[in-house]
Amino acid sequence: MDTPALVIEKRKLDANIQKMADIARTKKVHLRPHTKTHKNPKIAKLQLEAGAAGITVAKVAEAEVMAEHGIDDIFIAYPLVSEIKIQKAIDLSRKIRLITAFDSLEGIQKLSQSAETAGVVLEVRMEIDSGLRRTGVLYDEAVELARKAKELPGIKLTGIYTFRGPILDGKPTLDIEEAGRQEGQLMADLAERLRAEGVPITDVSVGSTSTSASAAEVEGITEIRPGTYVFYDRMQEKYHCCLHEECAAAIHVTVVSKPSDSLLIVDGGSKTFATDVQPGQSPIFLEGFGEIIGHPEMLLERLTEEHGMVAVHGETNVQIGDVLQVIPNHICSTVNLHNDVFLKNEDGTLEKQAVLGRGKVQ
Amino acid sequence: MDTPALVIEKRKLDANIQKMADIARTKKVHLRPHTKTHKNPKIAKLQLEAGAAGITVAKVAEAEVMAEHGIDDIFIAYPLVSEIKIQKAIDLSRKIRLITAFDSLEGIQKLSQSAETAGVVLEVRMEIDSGLRRTGVLYDEAVELARKAKELPGIKLTGIYTFRGPILDGKPTLDIEEAGRQEGQLMADLAERLRAEGVPITDVSVGSTSTSASAAEVEGITEIRPGTYVFYDRMQEKYHCCLHEECAAAIHVTVVSKPSDSLLIVDGGSKTFATDVQPGQSPIFLEGFGEIIGHPEMLLERLTEEHGMVAVHGETNVQIGDVLQVIPNHICSTVNLHNDVFLKNEDGTLEKQAVLGRGKVQ
Repeated sequence: MDTPALVIEKRKLDANIQKMADIARTKKVHLRPHTKTHKNPKIAKLQLEAGAAGITVAKVAEAEVMAEHGIDDIFIAYPLVSEIKIQKAIDLSRKIRLITAFDSLEGIQKLSQSAETAGVVLEVRMEIDSGLRRTGVLYDEAVELARKAKELPGIKLTGIYTFRGPILDGKPTLDIEEAGRQEGQLMADLAERLRAEGVPITDVSVGSTSTSASAAEVEGITEIRPGTYVFYDRMQEKYHCCLHEECAAAIHVTVVSKPSDSLLIVDGGSKTFATDVQPGQSPIFLEGFGEIIGHPEMLLERLTEEHGMVAVHGETNVQIGDVLQVIPNHICSTVNLHNDVFLKNEDGTLEKQAVLGRGKVQ
Repeated sequence: MDTPALVIEKRKLDANIQKMADIARTKKVHLRPHTKTHKNPKIAKLQLEAGAAGITVAKVAEAEVMAEHGIDDIFIAYPLVSEIKIQKAIDLSRKIRLITAFDSLEGIQKLSQSAETAGVVLEVRMEIDSGLRRTGVLYDEAVELARKAKELPGIKLTGIYTFRGPILDGKPTLDIEEAGRQEGQLMADLAERLRAEGVPITDVSVGSTSTSASAAEVEGITEIRPGTYVFYDRMQEKYHCCLHEECAAAIHVTVVSKPSDSLLIVDGGSKTFATDVQPGQSPIFLEGFGEIIGHPEMLLERLTEEHGMVAVHGETNVQIGDVLQVIPNHICSTVNLHNDVFLKNEDGTLEKQAVLGRGKVQ
């Protein structure tokens, strides 16, 4: 196998899939994994076989790829506001169960108009901002928006959803259990208020690998949408969402140069390792751009596009031509950089799989 | 056109290609543009038609894509040390003029052995570390390495090259002219020393969009390898390598949510805008992850994977559904995130082009 290459250990992948399926089963919620992490219909099918009720995607183009490969229950957890995307979603909704999303009056009006014109009824969920400050209707404005949405033709408002991650009282936190409970409680309470207003909410969906398990314990939560758990990564390990040995994906890189005893250069840079989760950021303070397995004396300190600069503290017998394995800081954005990944079976054989959903940004 | 989409203005692209070709012609050096920026054989051909002598790539897999599309003079400016890559390079060298690289004794010995076994002679250049501290033999060790390389079979050492960028006396600088002159002088001096030792260096190649023009003025420099100039970006503008209106590539994004008067959410995040050039870094101190054209009151302040959070300082009449155009901080790594780009002709028509070299990390 040439390098750089993203290698996934099948045994760990299977165990991670099973673990989250068991959590959902035990806590009696649906599991609808976010496939942004792997972007791979084959892995999505493993998740479905283990008990997932459907999948989540962020983009219409990702939904199209997944549907083309036989997946028939998809939630696009992203507000659709442009005509092109809405038309594509309508087309897709004629073939599979497709759930779309909105977080504004403009958004739901457009969905409604286009659906009515097309003669379909779109199943929709309302996104709630539960503290991340990105998309999602503000919590206090949700009842008013839902009341208006309920009256519109061409849509059927069945649920609410949020994505929050490890945030507690509006601030990043390492206390993911309490963060999850707060997320769950906010959403369960809101669902009750909406029902009291005559909006028949059946699906109450919460997100993220870090908070799913504890959010699912809150009475009234019906669905979790974790994504990263399928592989885990260095960030999740720092959040104590996984053990080190559960990290299933690593980048294999080759040492191409050794300018001095304290510096090695490897053949992966910022076009191989995602840079969205930077070193030194609160609250997890990762060191470097990835963990070099088995080499605590090494730090992947600096990246240019095609080079990784590894600082060596102390002695090493690593030489030019040797291969190092690196657990990336953030696996979702890292997978997105790769055209292919390699599934490594227990017998050591490698299976090359195209990342069919990568680059499907629209 | 759906969003997010990377749109390149053909008129500006053509002008940028012509400008660098004119610089090379005037300064009597070869131009061998680094195609890492666009990863597109069609744009490489425009560069060749304007007078480029060949192209540069970072990866064997990129060279293969370019050769498949009819480009027959390629320099892989990256030390090849693994057997798989060396064999692929040897195969390619039978079809086109391929120049490979080394920066260590281990590297050149492997190239030599494999080439001799295969019965070919590989044209090679030695990479010099002129201050960036990544690959490249240390300046003071270059003569010794070249002397050993010269004696090996299967290879023909014809040149030296470096990549440095805006560094002066070992530190990041905004004085790109002086940085370029220093880079050029270091390389020209080294070439003379090598010739005095009996190593017949003919190609003395320097890199980077920011330093090429001034490095090319140094007597003895024979080739420049700029890449980013083809589109330019926000970083190059800050380095005064280009005017604002020369930036040829922008990401078009749609406003999908407007949680408050001071916050807009657009449909491009860290999977659409590269994050390798972060805001606030010395010496250029960019604000945010891209410049929103025509909206100085807006700042692309924060990115999650599929969301861009735009802070609005003051009033705006931008609404949900509106499209914004953003010049990215670093265009090379940004293009690498996109499966396609759209060339916009002067008449407004759009031509979709696959980024054939993207993800070719091996």
